[in-house]
Amino acid sequence: MKIKAPYLLFFGESTKAKTATGVFYWRPELCMAQLKYEGCPIDLGIPNMTPTEAFDAGIKTLVIGVAPPGGQLPDHWKLTLLEALDAGLDIASGLHTRIMDIPEIANKAKELGRQIFDVRHPVENFDVGKGIKKTGKRLLAVGTDCAVGKMFATLAIEKEMKARGMNVDFRATGQTGIFIAGKGVSVDAVVADFISGATETLCPNNTDDHWDIIEGQGSLFHPSFAGVTLGLIHGSQPDVMVLCHEAGRNNIIGVEGFPLPELETAVFAYEYHARLTNKNAKVVGICINTSALGDAEYEAYLNAVEDKAGLPAVDPVRTGVGKIVDVL
Amino acid sequence: MKIKAPYLLFFGESTKAKTATGVFYWRPELCMAQLKYEGCPIDLGIPNMTPTEAFDAGIKTLVIGVAPPGGQLPDHWKLTLLEALDAGLDIASGLHTRIMDIPEIANKAKELGRQIFDVRHPVENFDVGKGIKKTGKRLLAVGTDCAVGKMFATLAIEKEMKARGMNVDFRATGQTGIFIAGKGVSVDAVVADFISGATETLCPNNTDDHWDIIEGQGSLFHPSFAGVTLGLIHGSQPDVMVLCHEAGRNNIIGVEGFPLPELETAVFAYEYHARLTNKNAKVVGICINTSALGDAEYEAYLNAVEDKAGLPAVDPVRTGVGKIVDVL
Repeated sequence: MKIKAPYLLFFGESTKAKTATGVFYWRPELCMAQLKYEGCPIDLGIPNMTPTEAFDAGIKTLVIGVAPPGGQLPDHWKLTLLEALDAGLDIASGLHTRIMDIPEIANKAKELGRQIFDVRHPVENFDVGKGIKKTGKRLLAVGTDCAVGKMFATLAIEKEMKARGMNVDFRATGQTGIFIAGKGVSVDAVVADFISGATETLCPNNTDDHWDIIEGQGSLFHPSFAGVTLGLIHGSQPDVMVLCHEAGRNNIIGVEGFPLPELETAVFAYEYHARLTNKNAKVVGICINTSALGDAEYEAYLNAVEDKAGLPAVDPVRTGVGKIVDVL
Repeated sequence: MKIKAPYLLFFGESTKAKTATGVFYWRPELCMAQLKYEGCPIDLGIPNMTPTEAFDAGIKTLVIGVAPPGGQLPDHWKLTLLEALDAGLDIASGLHTRIMDIPEIANKAKELGRQIFDVRHPVENFDVGKGIKKTGKRLLAVGTDCAVGKMFATLAIEKEMKARGMNVDFRATGQTGIFIAGKGVSVDAVVADFISGATETLCPNNTDDHWDIIEGQGSLFHPSFAGVTLGLIHGSQPDVMVLCHEAGRNNIIGVEGFPLPELETAVFAYEYHARLTNKNAKVVGICINTSALGDAEYEAYLNAVEDKAGLPAVDPVRTGVGKIVDVL
């Protein structure tokens, strides 16, 4: 599976487009145009195009980078998707609803030979994890919680490593990451037996100087998703991990009554489990979203974390990730 | 979902029937008859019946408790399944192949109003785990490895507790267990995001004196399946755990190069993770399959384990599980 670029980013009448915004932030060169309905306030500052205009301009895929209001796919969105197929575009969707389950769309795609990528619904047949040590080097982002900036941290690290001429690939494990990389596996959507096996597929054997920079998912400390995280750790066999955290967050999101772990506790737990499939695994740095702190505060906060944990601590947005890449 | 008993156990021409044998061992009262082709050596000592004879005798469900040779469903098995539907029986299957994906079978079941249970393929829509503490008490079997007797241990514990008049339910998490209980969830077959959520559904709120005895799956120390195990731990919120182990096993099965953990290491890891959703969780006993040891050796082995781990150690087959039920 490889989603062909460039993309036509489709917003419908949505008011937020976190996924599309993420793709545009990290890969503006893939985002050639946008398509939205009247009243949609989102504007990435790229040309508005119809599907036909997009195809004529060389665009290959319409990307649905938003969720429809209410969660159900409205009929007028369907018409736009059918129009895109007719115009010559593939479709890539990050919706929970499977686009391939809409018969009109599936039939037209088949008839015209277009590809549909439901990136939240892996279609590959995975094997179970084997635990055989792979060649090449791997970095995995882990977190004190979900939604603490693991994708941002890994993409920032990939960018910095590329800038230094290192041999590196970002490996996507969630929908936004998959649009950014054009490929990947939504590991939280695979059948439970195959979490580590799917992750092994995502980061195959490579040359000794090559780094896979693997987007993390979930957290060992989140009671809803820790199983996904553990399978991802075992399958990715990380040589190094970066621990991601949000300054000021005290409780695990989406559930009640679960305090965040101490950073030292998290470092211990991640290293403990990662060493099952890579005995040298270690946490080499901490990435902190310090957006809750003022300009006068965040440096002292990062310094305090460094002193306590004995590891480099950065805010990928404010300080960059150079200090972490220095140790790779 | 509730698979209706009694069962007609179907073997085809298989030579092994681990699942059917397990169901017959624990629930002989559910297993009224068997159906097999010429040359099949399996015989549980119950009457042979055709589907029509079975229906006339009051049997409700044909249970496929074997795997077809070669893994693919042979055409003559299909004919037998269609005959069972015609005769008035539901079908419950533990095959990897989804019976409902065979159009002739799905169509006939729909037409006649029969139920098909593909127990390896959960069809429920689960929610993500919430981590909200449930009422009632829960015991979960965990293991130093996969296939160390977790199902046997939990069924033995359930039986002993019932014999003592305790209020108890066995909760099945795998195919054989589901045929035994008539219901349950194959947790390793749910989508990764919903492992703990599905497990929460399996063990709902209950009265203070009630025990759920939850069949375990996988092992935190198995690089293929640890994610399943961790989600199961978090979703089941165990008050107590029994650690299962096989005497003489040195390496994790199905993979190469993974030694079994020390029992103390396993106790630590299971308690550490279980305390995320139940702060009082503890391992209260060790169930050991000592079949590799002679009659002169196994007692000394169990005694040595008790002394070292400071926990009661039993072989559910040789000593029974009374010592463990004593502490519940």
